[in-house]
Amino acid sequence: MVAEPVRQVASEPYPWPYDGLRPPSLGLLLVGWDRHWASVVEDPDEVVARCVGLAAAVVAVGGQVVSVSHQRLRRGASPASAVVPSLPVDRLPPTTIAVSSSGIDGFFAGELDLTLRTNGIDQLIVAGLGLEGPVHSTLRSANDRGLECVLVTDACAAADADLVAGSLSSVCMSGGIFGAVVGLDAVLKVLAPAVSPSPVPSTQESRP
Amino acid sequence: MVAEPVRQVASEPYPWPYDGLRPPSLGLLLVGWDRHWASVVEDPDEVVARCVGLAAAVVAVGGQVVSVSHQRLRRGASPASAVVPSLPVDRLPPTTIAVSSSGIDGFFAGELDLTLRTNGIDQLIVAGLGLEGPVHSTLRSANDRGLECVLVTDACAAADADLVAGSLSSVCMSGGIFGAVVGLDAVLKVLAPAVSPSPVPSTQESRP
Amino acid sequence: MVAEPVRQVASEPYPWPYDGLRPPSLGLLLVGWDRHWASVVEDPDEVVARCVGLAAAVVAVGGQVVSVSHQRLRRGASPASAVVPSLPVDRLPPTTIAVSSSGIDGFFAGELDLTLRTNGIDQLIVAGLGLEGPVHSTLRSANDRGLECVLVTDACAAADADLVAGSLSSVCMSGGIFGAVVGLDAVLKVLAPAVSPSPVPSTQESRP
Amino acid sequence: MVAEPVRQVASEPYPWPYDGLRPPSLGLLLVGWDRHWASVVEDPDEVVARCVGLAAAVVAVGGQVVSVSHQRLRRGASPASAVVPSLPVDRLPPTTIAVSSSGIDGFFAGELDLTLRTNGIDQLIVAGLGLEGPVHSTLRSANDRGLECVLVTDACAAADADLVAGSLSSVCMSGGIFGAVVGLDAVLKVLAPAVSPSPVPSTQESRP
Repeated sequence: MVAEPVRQVASEPYPWPYDGLRPPSLGLLLVGWDRHWASVVEDPDEVVARCVGLAAAVVAVGGQVVSVSHQRLRRGASPASAVVPSLPVDRLPPTTIAVSSSGIDGFFAGELDLTLRTNGIDQLIVAGLGLEGPVHSTLRSANDRGLECVLVTDACAAADADLVAGSLSSVCMSGGIFGAVVGLDAVLKVLAPAVSPSPVPSTQESRP
Repeated sequence: MVAEPVRQVASEPYPWPYDGLRPPSLGLLLVGWDRHWASVVEDPDEVVARCVGLAAAVVAVGGQVVSVSHQRLRRGASPASAVVPSLPVDRLPPTTIAVSSSGIDGFFAGELDLTLRTNGIDQLIVAGLGLEGPVHSTLRSANDRGLECVLVTDACAAADADLVAGSLSSVCMSGGIFGAVVGLDAVLKVLAPAVSPSPVPSTQESRP
Repeated sequence: MVAEPVRQVASEPYPWPYDGLRPPSLGLLLVGWDRHWASVVEDPDEVVARCVGLAAAVVAVGGQVVSVSHQRLRRGASPASAVVPSLPVDRLPPTTIAVSSSGIDGFFAGELDLTLRTNGIDQLIVAGLGLEGPVHSTLRSANDRGLECVLVTDACAAADADLVAGSLSSVCMSGGIFGAVVGLDAVLKVLAPAVSPSPVPSTQESRP
Repeated sequence: MVAEPVRQVASEPYPWPYDGLRPPSLGLLLVGWDRHWASVVEDPDEVVARCVGLAAAVVAVGGQVVSVSHQRLRRGASPASAVVPSLPVDRLPPTTIAVSSSGIDGFFAGELDLTLRTNGIDQLIVAGLGLEGPVHSTLRSANDRGLECVLVTDACAAADADLVAGSLSSVCMSGGIFGAVVGLDAVLKVLAPAVSPSPVPSTQESRP
């Protein structure tokens, strides 16, 4: 077998993943994937469309898509009242796993960590709604867990446009304390070669 | 104000709770409260009936009932296929909080810990289906969290009758390593005085 | 007994704590309290001095100080090499509890959550080293856990001064999504009355 | 490359690991590895000696040894007073990773989960002191996490000999609800072939 070249995304402040893409271990985490976060961020439709395209590319290369909705238990409120509907997953790959969390950190009080582990996922592309809210909290938490993360900047929607620059800078501080950041095009470019060696679309790509 | 006497259950190997009953902090945890565990334990109907009676007594005294169902994520299985239906909660108090866990330990990968904390519950009466399975795992986990626990022996159903004695002994080892154990009658006796100062049922007791 | 007035700090975007100060439940969390974070933030000495003063005030009013150091387990590195020395606690109150975490989130992979719970602490004043790093991650995590948090802006040191404004804004977004923020003077002013009913300093205040 | 035969231990109620031994993912978890548990179990010296032998065999085959000590935070007690000294690790392989937990469940409030993940360990041989205490709690918790576990019965010491049979039976109930069980000899037999293709001991085996 001929050794494959190491595939990495041209992210900042370092190329991601540090040890090269391993598709069976690749996951796309769509954070803030619920009606609450869609209602508070700016321009959710455009970002959702980008996430949908990214999801198709990740699945085509052999990765797994996981979406996270967030319900919040508050003092005096019943858990039933805390349930926030997930965004429709119609446009996501049919193999998408939808999990819920009871925190802004998508790993908190839910089955996300277990889902990643039982599926063998440790390379995470992170995107979604609520850049400075759930996306950032979940990215921080994923990084603490030793998962190798890249944040796709233009596949994230922010609640406050003024917080975008600072949010992205903080990911990169200290040499990438919470992972790496990259634009959508650069990610798609790296994922594409693996799935389109010829102009003929693969079976995976042609599913509705 | 006249100081109230400290109310404790005559449990083994020590009276529970160690600092006396404080109803706003009291919770009844009904573990294994799902169709899977109802299908594998012996005599679930009788134990469910006892749990229902205990739940009414706990609520009447000002406590909170929390039921836990367990879904299990397994390699190669989709999360959707892991969902196990909860037992019907029709007969439980309407204020019952139903949570789910993705482990045999009811605290694992779910919102149980957060639910107890946001409701201020730290005194736990533990009962349910699967004595040596979810009941024991959840009791152990509750104890590690510093929650004050008593296991109601005859309000638990076991999958294997031969494991009952050992399971109860292990709770009590080393002076109550995982909490205390007690029979249902002794618990009801301690809860009762607080709610029935007169033969007239309270509003809470008269709800359907 | 005469009802005490509700004591609250004049924080933004809401007064903290929402239900008034309850000193036995009050904790001061000193995050990033280790040599690594002291080495990367700007002006650690001044901020440490402010934290020391705040700690004395919190203890004088009946609260508890908890410091958190962060070690990071990395691929290929031994845990022993991950240990980062805590800052000296000589100047902190002798009752200070020092805990460690294996993440940037002080609650991750350590005993912080358990320490707060067993000490009955659910009102948190948050300060320390690494505003956009461990301080922010820990504040986010505390908020998910339902703990009532206020961040003391000028008792935090940042690694990058350019990130301060955004970090503070993000705490307050959506009406205080991660808690409230306030300056040190405003906190000390609210803590003080409870401990100095007379001009005579209490024994606690006069300890070195 | 010639396909290697799948290596499995002849455990009950199913052969372990279900997908065959993969040494880089293999870990030996020595639970209850502290002075408290050594003081309450029966015959600790003999079991420690067996664990030491097992540890050498695991490392020789390319696996990793992790020991867990347990400190317990209790109401009113200071964390400092909760520290329980680990057992000496002199006789264990020098690459042994020693972690601590603040619970009877070795995964609780400590860095065990992170340690296993960052070392890529998901096949666990479990042994140690306190069969019905920390060993059982940790085994249950490992199983919830989706780790593939086998308990080595005669490399565990119990606090109460009467609880041994029930403890082992409960692991195997429902077709192996908490993993599989096996005797030490059967484990050593499976580990051995991989490391002794010839009568000449490897360098690793000859270390003191």
